[in-house]
Amino acid sequence: MINKLVAKIKKTNAPIVVGLDPMMKFIPGHIQSKAFAEYGETLEGAAEAIWQYNKGIVDAICDLIPAVKPQIAMYEQFGIPGMAAFQKTVDYCREKDLVVIGDIKRGDIGSTSEAYAVGHLGKVQVGSRFYYGFDEDFATVNPYMGSDSVKPFIRVCKEEKKGIFVLVKTSNPSSGEFQDRLIDGRPLYEIVGEYVDAWGKECMGEDYSYVGAVVGATYPEQGKLLRELMPKTFILVPGYGAQGGTGADLIHFFNKDGLGAVINSSRGIIAAYQQEQYAQYGEENYGEASRAAVLDMREDIARALQTYSC
Amino acid sequence: MINKLVAKIKKTNAPIVVGLDPMMKFIPGHIQSKAFAEYGETLEGAAEAIWQYNKGIVDAICDLIPAVKPQIAMYEQFGIPGMAAFQKTVDYCREKDLVVIGDIKRGDIGSTSEAYAVGHLGKVQVGSRFYYGFDEDFATVNPYMGSDSVKPFIRVCKEEKKGIFVLVKTSNPSSGEFQDRLIDGRPLYEIVGEYVDAWGKECMGEDYSYVGAVVGATYPEQGKLLRELMPKTFILVPGYGAQGGTGADLIHFFNKDGLGAVINSSRGIIAAYQQEQYAQYGEENYGEASRAAVLDMREDIARALQTYSC
Repeated sequence: MINKLVAKIKKTNAPIVVGLDPMMKFIPGHIQSKAFAEYGETLEGAAEAIWQYNKGIVDAICDLIPAVKPQIAMYEQFGIPGMAAFQKTVDYCREKDLVVIGDIKRGDIGSTSEAYAVGHLGKVQVGSRFYYGFDEDFATVNPYMGSDSVKPFIRVCKEEKKGIFVLVKTSNPSSGEFQDRLIDGRPLYEIVGEYVDAWGKECMGEDYSYVGAVVGATYPEQGKLLRELMPKTFILVPGYGAQGGTGADLIHFFNKDGLGAVINSSRGIIAAYQQEQYAQYGEENYGEASRAAVLDMREDIARALQTYSC
Repeated sequence: MINKLVAKIKKTNAPIVVGLDPMMKFIPGHIQSKAFAEYGETLEGAAEAIWQYNKGIVDAICDLIPAVKPQIAMYEQFGIPGMAAFQKTVDYCREKDLVVIGDIKRGDIGSTSEAYAVGHLGKVQVGSRFYYGFDEDFATVNPYMGSDSVKPFIRVCKEEKKGIFVLVKTSNPSSGEFQDRLIDGRPLYEIVGEYVDAWGKECMGEDYSYVGAVVGATYPEQGKLLRELMPKTFILVPGYGAQGGTGADLIHFFNKDGLGAVINSSRGIIAAYQQEQYAQYGEENYGEASRAAVLDMREDIARALQTYSC
C-alpha cells in the first residue's frame, strides 16, 4: 500500500492527504436540514449529515489527491451511527481508489493491539470464515506502550500489504511535555524515531517502508532531524494550514527526490467555504471551495519544493 | 463516579475490576453454536455470541464486584456489530449498577480528544439536542501527546462527574522501551505520574481524584514509588493472574487505608472454566466458574492486604 501511495503522489503531483474530520459546525445548513428532516435531530441524523457532507467533498476532489485521512474520533462521538458513517466513508473512498489512512491512534498490548490491527487493517475470524471490519489502508498508532503495541500491527501489515504511521513528534503545543524530554541528551521523539526506522526495515516496500511516522508541520526543525534519522520512513505531516504550518515549513520533511512526506490538511480543505478566501463559492458549493483549496495547497507545496531543489 | 467506585469497593470488600475482554476462544461452544445458528458465521453472529457470553458472566458475578472493564479492541475487531455488542455490554453493566471502565486507551489533540471524551463519557450535541454515545463511567487515556490530549477528558469528567485512568507504567514486557527512559535521572513514567497527580488536583472527589493512573501489577517496585508520588490518585492495576502478577505483588499499590487501587483480572475470571482449577464446573457452567475465580481473587488480595497492615 505504501507503493500505491507513492505512485498516486507521483501521478497527482500532490503529496497531500485530506483529513475528513467532519464537525457539525462545518456541515452546510442545507445538508443538516435534509438529514434532520429524514432522521430527526438524532445520532442517525448527524451520521447521515456527515456522510452526505463527506461524499460531496470526496466527489469534488478525488481526482486531485492520493489519499484521505478520516479522523475516527469525529465519528465515534456519535456512537454506533457515527461509526457506521466512518465505515461508509472509508468504503466510499476506497471505491474511488483513494488511499485511506484511518486516523485512529490506537495502541495496546499483545492480543489487544492485534485485535485493533485486525479490526482496522486485517481480517477477523468468525468460525470458519474471515471478515474485514473497518478495512482502512493505513492506521495511525500510538507507541507509548513500546514494541508490544506496534508489532501486532506490523504482522497484519505484512499479511495485508498495508501500513501504519507511528506517532513520533505530534503537532500540538503540548507535545513537548513528554516527547521532547531529554534522554542521554536526546529527546524522546528521536528515540521513538529510531525504533520506527528499525521496525520499518522489517517490512520495506519498493522505496519506502510500510511503517511510517507522524511528525507535525509545526515543528520543522524536528522534522528535518527526523527526516535524516529515518531515511526510508514516509512521514505523515499534520498541522499544515489551520494549525499554523506553511509550505516553507514543510520542505525538510521531504527527501531530495521530492518524496517521503505526505501533508495533511483537514479543516483548511473540508471547511474551505467558511474562509474568506473561498467565500465566493457559497455554502451550496462547498465541494468546489474544497477543490480550489486543494489546488492552492498543491501549488504552495510545489513552490516550496521547487525552491528546495534549486 | 470515583466516590461511587470507592463506596462499592468498600461495600463488596473487593478492590477488583473484571476485564470483559471476550475472545472467541473463550466463548463456550454452546453459545457460539446458538449465535451462529441464528446469525450465521458472520460479524453479527460473533457479536451475539460475545454479548450472550458477557451477560452470563455479569449475571453470575455482579453482586461480588464493584466494576467491570470492557476492552473495546475485542469488540472493535468485529466492526460495527462488535461495537454494538460493546455498547450493549456497557448499558447492561450500568443497569446492574456496576461501575464501567471503558478500556479504550484513546488520546489525540484538542478538539479531537474532546470528541473522544464526549463520545465515551459525555454528551454530543445534534442540532438542539444532546445524546450520550457509549456512556462509560471511566475511560483509559494515553498521555503520549501531553496535556492537550488529557485536558479535554478532564473537562468532560468535571461536567459529568466521571473519571479517567491515564497510562503511566503499563504491564507489558516492552513498556520500558520508552516509559523507563531516564530523564535527569528519573524514568519517564515518574514524570507522567507527576502530571497525573497535578491534573488530578483539578478535580478531586471525596478522598480520591477523578483522574486515576494505570500501573501494571507486573512492576511492583514502580507501583510502590508511584503510589507515594500520587497519593490521591486511584490506581488501576492490570497484569494480575494471566500476566503473572500475584496478590503479594499488589500490596504497595494500595494506601494504608486499604484503598487507592483496583486490580483488574480478565481471562483469569472470564475464562476461568478453561483452567484446571475450575474445570469441574464445565463449559455449560462457565459463569459459576467465573464466580469461584472472583471469590478466590478476593481472598488472595484480602490476605495480602492483611499481611500488609499487620
